[in-house]
Amino acid sequence: MEDVVELAYALDTFYFLLSGALVMWMAAGFTMLEAGMVRAKNTTEILTKNIGLYSIAVIMYMLIGWNLMYESSGSLLPTFSFLLPASEPVTAEMARSGEATESYFSDFFFQVVFVATAMSIVSGAVAERMKLWSFLIFAVVLTGFIYPIQGLWSWGGGFLDQMGFSDFAGSAIVHMAGASAALAGVLVLGARKGKYGPRGEVRAIPGANLPLATLGTFILWLGWFGFNGGSELSVSSAGAANAVATIFMNTNLAAAGGVVAALLLARALFGKADLTMALNGAIAGLVSITAGPDTPSPLLAAFIGGVGGVLVVFSIVALDKLKIDDPVGAISAHGTAGIWGILAVLLSNPDATFGAQIAGLLSIFTFVFLASLVVWLILRFTLGIRASEEDEQKGMDVTECGMEAYPDFTAGRK
Amino acid sequence: MEDVVELAYALDTFYFLLSGALVMWMAAGFTMLEAGMVRAKNTTEILTKNIGLYSIAVIMYMLIGWNLMYESSGSLLPTFSFLLPASEPVTAEMARSGEATESYFSDFFFQVVFVATAMSIVSGAVAERMKLWSFLIFAVVLTGFIYPIQGLWSWGGGFLDQMGFSDFAGSAIVHMAGASAALAGVLVLGARKGKYGPRGEVRAIPGANLPLATLGTFILWLGWFGFNGGSELSVSSAGAANAVATIFMNTNLAAAGGVVAALLLARALFGKADLTMALNGAIAGLVSITAGPDTPSPLLAAFIGGVGGVLVVFSIVALDKLKIDDPVGAISAHGTAGIWGILAVLLSNPDATFGAQIAGLLSIFTFVFLASLVVWLILRFTLGIRASEEDEQKGMDVTECGMEAYPDFTAGRK
Amino acid sequence: MEDVVELAYALDTFYFLLSGALVMWMAAGFTMLEAGMVRAKNTTEILTKNIGLYSIAVIMYMLIGWNLMYESSGSLLPTFSFLLPASEPVTAEMARSGEATESYFSDFFFQVVFVATAMSIVSGAVAERMKLWSFLIFAVVLTGFIYPIQGLWSWGGGFLDQMGFSDFAGSAIVHMAGASAALAGVLVLGARKGKYGPRGEVRAIPGANLPLATLGTFILWLGWFGFNGGSELSVSSAGAANAVATIFMNTNLAAAGGVVAALLLARALFGKADLTMALNGAIAGLVSITAGPDTPSPLLAAFIGGVGGVLVVFSIVALDKLKIDDPVGAISAHGTAGIWGILAVLLSNPDATFGAQIAGLLSIFTFVFLASLVVWLILRFTLGIRASEEDEQKGMDVTECGMEAYPDFTAGRK
Repeated sequence: MEDVVELAYALDTFYFLLSGALVMWMAAGFTMLEAGMVRAKNTTEILTKNIGLYSIAVIMYMLIGWNLMYESSGSLLPTFSFLLPASEPVTAEMARSGEATESYFSDFFFQVVFVATAMSIVSGAVAERMKLWSFLIFAVVLTGFIYPIQGLWSWGGGFLDQMGFSDFAGSAIVHMAGASAALAGVLVLGARKGKYGPRGEVRAIPGANLPLATLGTFILWLGWFGFNGGSELSVSSAGAANAVATIFMNTNLAAAGGVVAALLLARALFGKADLTMALNGAIAGLVSITAGPDTPSPLLAAFIGGVGGVLVVFSIVALDKLKIDDPVGAISAHGTAGIWGILAVLLSNPDATFGAQIAGLLSIFTFVFLASLVVWLILRFTLGIRASEEDEQKGMDVTECGMEAYPDFTAGRK
Repeated sequence: MEDVVELAYALDTFYFLLSGALVMWMAAGFTMLEAGMVRAKNTTEILTKNIGLYSIAVIMYMLIGWNLMYESSGSLLPTFSFLLPASEPVTAEMARSGEATESYFSDFFFQVVFVATAMSIVSGAVAERMKLWSFLIFAVVLTGFIYPIQGLWSWGGGFLDQMGFSDFAGSAIVHMAGASAALAGVLVLGARKGKYGPRGEVRAIPGANLPLATLGTFILWLGWFGFNGGSELSVSSAGAANAVATIFMNTNLAAAGGVVAALLLARALFGKADLTMALNGAIAGLVSITAGPDTPSPLLAAFIGGVGGVLVVFSIVALDKLKIDDPVGAISAHGTAGIWGILAVLLSNPDATFGAQIAGLLSIFTFVFLASLVVWLILRFTLGIRASEEDEQKGMDVTECGMEAYPDFTAGRK
Repeated sequence: MEDVVELAYALDTFYFLLSGALVMWMAAGFTMLEAGMVRAKNTTEILTKNIGLYSIAVIMYMLIGWNLMYESSGSLLPTFSFLLPASEPVTAEMARSGEATESYFSDFFFQVVFVATAMSIVSGAVAERMKLWSFLIFAVVLTGFIYPIQGLWSWGGGFLDQMGFSDFAGSAIVHMAGASAALAGVLVLGARKGKYGPRGEVRAIPGANLPLATLGTFILWLGWFGFNGGSELSVSSAGAANAVATIFMNTNLAAAGGVVAALLLARALFGKADLTMALNGAIAGLVSITAGPDTPSPLLAAFIGGVGGVLVVFSIVALDKLKIDDPVGAISAHGTAGIWGILAVLLSNPDATFGAQIAGLLSIFTFVFLASLVVWLILRFTLGIRASEEDEQKGMDVTECGMEAYPDFTAGRK
């Protein structure tokens, strides 16, 4: 190994793999966040859903999704093909000549964990009342087809990319897309029993394990350095290394801004230091900066995250007014903040245009929402998606999984 | 720093250290997995055992184990010597000339966390009824002597290496070895009180905290990228970087395959979405690919993991039929899947031979099982290894550690 | 990208960012450790404090702290200036010429997570009886002013640096500084109700969730590889890579030594395997090696950590005798072990002098303790810092946060 171009290839491949590993870790973050925010009696099910959906995402993207998104001609509808190459397509010669700047398989590894992220967002919103197997079938469709098709439009070189839509690491392509699918699911599914009273009052259904929810948020925060940092796609030149450094710093600042803003706003509104709002503030801050973490100044990054933290609080309150029951706040943290993130790109990136940003938001939301709605409705009228009232009362853990999550702590209490 | 060979040395050393840090993180994974799978009353003890065994492994390998395994002549029995060098043996000149491709101490750091992994496997299998201090003494012997001696045979250039035994990152050398020591311990120790009824019926003893068990599995999954990826031993050439990328991708696919296969099989067998089987499916998938993550195609990797996920379910059921009581399924996930992993190398690696793979399995199992059995028996007839019936009833936390793990949740209930 | 100097710049920047991400992860470690060590009724509050303080640290250091510490002339008192540059100051030309060896923003990112670490130490010591908003205001002052001013003295090139004070990664600058602020807070605040009996007896107040505390310790252990390893500030030459390898290995050995020593000592003193002492032993071992992880031999590193593990046990016992109530042992693990760490540098680093080490300890302790004391006293006589007796009885979660951490496990029990 004597050649500096080859060594740069090695560094970029390694950077991609580590970034992907950090994003994979976000699957644990979503799992802990959601497990902490549901009631004890629905915990085993949400754990099963999360490890199941991650695994399904990885398999489906390998079988179909990756090819739809990145090996497809067409700018609106993909062409179909199956399976990854059997072995690494980049040869040593291509690496040494600079024809390829990182391993093909490292790119797949990085992208596959993004699909899982989009699907994880759905999981929380439909928690505590959905049939597990119907959920997993939805995961097959979203990760194999819906996500890759809209991904093709931007990151696969499709029509949104050609229009100049700017979504660096996926405020819309990943986060709002997941939230759109979740919203469709929640509308078809309805609210949990007892969430909204007969006179429209909103009843808090507190999560069973807030340390887990907090741990999940910190895991997401850490994983987001890979999510945003890896999306620069290279680190081996001075320009790329500087961009990655800016991204790490700004990602951290936006999350911090989201926490501080949500904490202060919740104090003003509710008079308390509201932990779940602080956690959603962190996530909203992260989602907000994701569309453009490389261009803002540090102060602007904190501000963008702070606005995300404000929006998520109002959005959670507003959705509850509309009786859209999202147990973990996923639609607000990923959807509302995702929209803001796409628009916030305009504050610091001179290449972004208002028209293209709006076009991206509308086309991604419309497609993912409608396609998901169709799938949810098909599932509803075939397998069914809503657990029976009795099962919901007993908890999904006993009825779907045959196993309580905390048998030694909850025994004898119903 | 002007020289590309030196820079490659720096990158490889850094890659080794990060890989080692990821494997160190697996110690937290085993700890959480095991803490989640035991009853509340035995949780403090298993936490203590895990942080204790990791620390013992690190100290013993520094004092003796590393030298036995890697600084020893002899291909069957090691020569003895003590202690690492006092300072880094690789000089800048050696790095610049390419005489050494990474730091000696980075190599030690990477290898030391493997020893701890092997020992962690034992911890779960003997949970809930073993005396803590006897367990820690066993940890001294396994990490200082038993593991390094069989490690010498393959990775230290001993007779299995010369025969062509192929075990890339340790399906047998680490995982089946740990499972063999665990099996010997479980046989000497006997089953937990109440696990098997008078007419041979198997009674489920549910774990107290399934979110922890799930978190532990995700931690292991993440750490495994270091475990397998670091075992390529280099990342600085195009060939090495491509190999590491293939390994990351395949490791992820095998784990996903294990989850999906175990979930579907458990549904067919038990009619439920069985979370603990899904978790063991993930681990079995990971163990299965560990002997050869660099050669399979992506589809084959998912298949190898899927077979691991199937085998682990049947193995857990079978061990219970044999009244071999393994509270966390460690013998199945690491032993049964480890054997399959060694054989699965034959599917994609033309250099592997059936004879050498079998020879490796037999010699490692025989030696580790018998040597462990001797140590367990000595401990049994000296300090004792089994907690008294009364202590087992009360729980190990109060009797061994003087401290409950969850005093606010379990108070007043027995 | 053809130039090896530029590639070294990229590698060093990437190494800095990953190290910083690992240190950021320590925030989750402190959060879990503290959440596990307090009672269930004070858990939501400590979670809120931790995610709040991390966010405040990030914002304040961006606004003011960084400039005080690193962009300030003066060796005792800083000059003031605000805000980071709006975009990365290091140009590609500076990177290629070797004028800068890593990105400015990567350096900020690495340093900002250190501030948060110092502040996290305070959080645990004042747990279970302090008003949340007063705590967060203290966080503003410590992270924006107190920490950076004393940081200037050593790492910013101030008078301690000029005297030859040697504190590689911050045994005193980060850990003892945090412990000094915590000690001042605890003295002003007083002990928790019921901790010390009328005849001076010490009552154990057990933590509610020991798996979380153990997880937190493992997270800290992992994060410490970034904390100490990143403090070498470069990895791209053979010498730097070797130093980082030595640091990773020694950090791991010191933590292991701390665990083993604390376990054995606690067994001798109390007759039990004391998990919380083992956890504090790990942290004390890590703090002890932090002042000089690059110079000891492996055996000496384990010994330095082991002494830390012994000291932390005696220190915890002694503080309780003095009725200094520190619910998580933070003052002992970071303060007592931090002092030992500074002195232990003299064992292997020929450049360190006894006089400079003592001067560093005294000046940092005196300044941080007194400055913190003033802030705590001002808070005490304005907003108040101590929760009312009734609120303390009910728990901080209900009174400060309006939200229980474990509603399904603790309902109906008080």
